[in-house]
Amino acid sequence: MKKYKVAIVGATGAVGREMLRCIFQFNFPFESLKLLASARSAGKVIEFEGQEFVVEELTENSFEGVDVAFWSAGGSISEKYMPYAVKAGCINIDNTSHFRMDPEVPLVVPEVNAEALKDHKGIIANPNCTTIIMASALNRLNEYFDIERIVVSTYQAVSGAGVAGMEELYRQSQEVLDGKEPVAKTLPCASDKKHYPIAFNCIPQVDKFDLDNAFTKEEMKMVNETKKIFNKDIKVNATCVRVPVLRGHSESVYIETKKPLDMDKVFELLSDSHGVDLYDDIENQIYPMATLFIGDELVHVGRVRKDLDNDHGLSMWIVSDQLMKGAAYNSVDIGLKMIEMGLL
Amino acid sequence: MKKYKVAIVGATGAVGREMLRCIFQFNFPFESLKLLASARSAGKVIEFEGQEFVVEELTENSFEGVDVAFWSAGGSISEKYMPYAVKAGCINIDNTSHFRMDPEVPLVVPEVNAEALKDHKGIIANPNCTTIIMASALNRLNEYFDIERIVVSTYQAVSGAGVAGMEELYRQSQEVLDGKEPVAKTLPCASDKKHYPIAFNCIPQVDKFDLDNAFTKEEMKMVNETKKIFNKDIKVNATCVRVPVLRGHSESVYIETKKPLDMDKVFELLSDSHGVDLYDDIENQIYPMATLFIGDELVHVGRVRKDLDNDHGLSMWIVSDQLMKGAAYNSVDIGLKMIEMGLL
Repeated sequence: MKKYKVAIVGATGAVGREMLRCIFQFNFPFESLKLLASARSAGKVIEFEGQEFVVEELTENSFEGVDVAFWSAGGSISEKYMPYAVKAGCINIDNTSHFRMDPEVPLVVPEVNAEALKDHKGIIANPNCTTIIMASALNRLNEYFDIERIVVSTYQAVSGAGVAGMEELYRQSQEVLDGKEPVAKTLPCASDKKHYPIAFNCIPQVDKFDLDNAFTKEEMKMVNETKKIFNKDIKVNATCVRVPVLRGHSESVYIETKKPLDMDKVFELLSDSHGVDLYDDIENQIYPMATLFIGDELVHVGRVRKDLDNDHGLSMWIVSDQLMKGAAYNSVDIGLKMIEMGLL
Repeated sequence: MKKYKVAIVGATGAVGREMLRCIFQFNFPFESLKLLASARSAGKVIEFEGQEFVVEELTENSFEGVDVAFWSAGGSISEKYMPYAVKAGCINIDNTSHFRMDPEVPLVVPEVNAEALKDHKGIIANPNCTTIIMASALNRLNEYFDIERIVVSTYQAVSGAGVAGMEELYRQSQEVLDGKEPVAKTLPCASDKKHYPIAFNCIPQVDKFDLDNAFTKEEMKMVNETKKIFNKDIKVNATCVRVPVLRGHSESVYIETKKPLDMDKVFELLSDSHGVDLYDDIENQIYPMATLFIGDELVHVGRVRKDLDNDHGLSMWIVSDQLMKGAAYNSVDIGLKMIEMGLL
């Protein structure tokens, strides 16, 4: 079996660390592994599975001889350096939002639209975490019942805002428990003007606002990326909310389908969906929760129930470690799927 | 002005304490104030505004000479003792779920359906916290645009499960910060079989399950009580979730109206709704959050925006201290409204 020269860009970040772990855990066949980050992190040693990796500075020349690179260092880094990687012949799987809506760039959840990989021109985009998780859970239901629209409210963990988000929640929680005022520096959005405490709070803002339509960019990612991944005009109404959870996004999802729902078939499809764990037994209080599934790559689905008034309406509760299926694992899985399809 | 002999049943609980505070804060005209609780709490002294109140044991004879009683000691207590209070000529405003769906009992949010008070037969029910908050926010929009259905996902504070819920979140949070396993004793529902940690987690169960339709009782309260309060067949799809917030429920609400929405009118109506604070200025990151409004009696509404695909669809984010508007304040406000209407 061919082995690949692999790079991770943004290797010291919350997602980058998980990318390294996924490459090992899911046996991505690498010959060499180059960890790239900013000059600030260069020289840092990362140990994993008994091996030591020295972080190198990302430059225009980092991709000579690299077969495939996994990117998660921010949209501006992808924008600036990825053209050099493409020119060097490297295939790039990008976890940032920069290229997602580019019509030349496939936006892929492998179990949903792997076929789109065939049209790649050196860049494949990994969708937003909230979108991946929802698309993965809904894929087989859409194939069978034809989903027309979605109303979703999210419960997003602070690790979606990186290591800084996690540190902030830990620190603020202790401040509140000690009777102090919690100090906010990062959330809801590091680059926005105001910051609010997330400890013991819910913040109805993830990413910045689009002032034209009053939705946030995070919400518009769910709207636009869902349409692109399913390659159809599914209507999406999203409300994205940050909650004081360290890791694992939850989503309250309501869908309407063109075909009337048959609940036996719904459960059969969810039981037989690649990457989906149907975790639903209310009689025994079994439903997914964020703290149950840290570090696993599945999308867990529970609280599945038909709308009381509409034979075409279905509610469910979806939980997944957004650093895994929502980011690192989906990226690595795209790479594995490309090998399987002979595209890498 | 007439002054009343008042009792609070369940005076030592999370809601009972707020009832006492609301009676003072909103100048409920009392001549005497009797605090009732179980035998266990009898004799306990509660100080408030420089006055001392000795808690008395609730018995069948507690209501002789009492004009009005505010109840929040659990459904079984209301079931057992309220008939004695009615027989004694006391008017009873009940915060438990026991009588809510009884067709003989008005279920009231004063700004929505005060007229229903006229039909009371000694008992008036206070709706569930999540229902009150939503009904109050939506009332004027319903009057003008005629709401046909609602899809709601809640973010409910642990104080909805009483003092024990708050103590559990504090304790578990410290346990997690200390690197220990959090111990769960109360949530999601004290009377259910299994308990799960709420610290740094979201639990998609509030109250027990209705195994017939797979919704929880809390979700069915939102479904059934909303129809009764608005006295029309509004379709409600609810997902109720407990989050690690101490106090203050948030709700992500999507509505569909019969008349097409005019956003200028929407904002005008929300600005001019009794008990509603329109708190919505996304350009300046202004939106309601649970920690902002602890102890106030208003329903705060933000993130108001039209659906991207439907001129009859509207999303909003609602936050209110559920112990106040969701329970104690709404109960006391029912009493004040009855005085105003000459019913007390």
